[in-house]
Amino acid sequence: MKFCTSCGNSVILQIPAGDDRKRFVCSSCELIHYSNPRVIVGCLPIYEGRVLLCKRAIEPRKNYWTLPAGFMENGETTVQGAARETWEEARAKVSNIDLYRIFDVPYINQVYMFYLCDLDNGVHDVGPESLETGLYKESDIPWNEIAFPVVTQTLKSYFSDATTGDFPVRVSAIDYRPRQK
Amino acid sequence: MKFCTSCGNSVILQIPAGDDRKRFVCSSCELIHYSNPRVIVGCLPIYEGRVLLCKRAIEPRKNYWTLPAGFMENGETTVQGAARETWEEARAKVSNIDLYRIFDVPYINQVYMFYLCDLDNGVHDVGPESLETGLYKESDIPWNEIAFPVVTQTLKSYFSDATTGDFPVRVSAIDYRPRQK
Repeated sequence: MKFCTSCGNSVILQIPAGDDRKRFVCSSCELIHYSNPRVIVGCLPIYEGRVLLCKRAIEPRKNYWTLPAGFMENGETTVQGAARETWEEARAKVSNIDLYRIFDVPYINQVYMFYLCDLDNGVHDVGPESLETGLYKESDIPWNEIAFPVVTQTLKSYFSDATTGDFPVRVSAIDYRPRQK
Repeated sequence: MKFCTSCGNSVILQIPAGDDRKRFVCSSCELIHYSNPRVIVGCLPIYEGRVLLCKRAIEPRKNYWTLPAGFMENGETTVQGAARETWEEARAKVSNIDLYRIFDVPYINQVYMFYLCDLDNGVHDVGPESLETGLYKESDIPWNEIAFPVVTQTLKSYFSDATTGDFPVRVSAIDYRPRQK
């Protein structure tokens, strides 16, 4: 960030009066520009015990498998966002949508919220951000080709909880760990 | 938003290629500026069945009572943010922090996350954004002087759930309703 969104003059990184951390403050109009974490909303769609996965058509992690998820947009609820992303990425409609897993990922300023839900009629198709979509039972999950740690953890939670039929909401923090090559 | 954060030239509200909603796009360098909902994290601190409330020293809703809460910051987890806000607003330390209530407030692009927790030793004091802090049992809550609907709903959930001792995580959406004068 270099310029003020309101007046176009340059910004300076400094601690505003009464604050305790650095913000981008306009050198001319003194507007403070706040930056806050973003929410990623997604679904864990289930059909006959199998999970809907999408192979990513875009970076980051192109060609790796993920659950349908993406940035929450202004004007929508977390549930609406999760369902929207599932339609966009997998042309799938979902119902019985219940909050399931939350992940804090502080080193990239993100909060993930995954909703457990039913995949209506088992129907899915390839959206513009996916190369492929498919329903996977536990033994067929491509564990070594999962795009993100939050997806691996959500899938492991699901298959573990499915043995009891109880799916409590859990919050976890993901620590930074360099990816193995 | 009028100017590009990267090059300082003017922005135009338009739908970028491959997108489906309007964003502020720079007329010169074509940078797309995304705006997304913000997360408000807070605590519901309990001591001997009483709830810690803060009387707001700042607008909006100055002089009304709230739970300690505020905007989640970059680089922290939701739990860390909730505990930080509780210290800042009520000089209170908390433990046994468990996610309790989530609210979508789409008309102001916010997601609230309240954590149920124990107030350590019952100790609290007035932080810079509060006029007063206090521990309230159900019959003493100033119900007509609560700052925000999400706070009223969280308090009602708590006293209802306390009758069973089971505090499940719940997600609700808050619809816009003009405030009664």
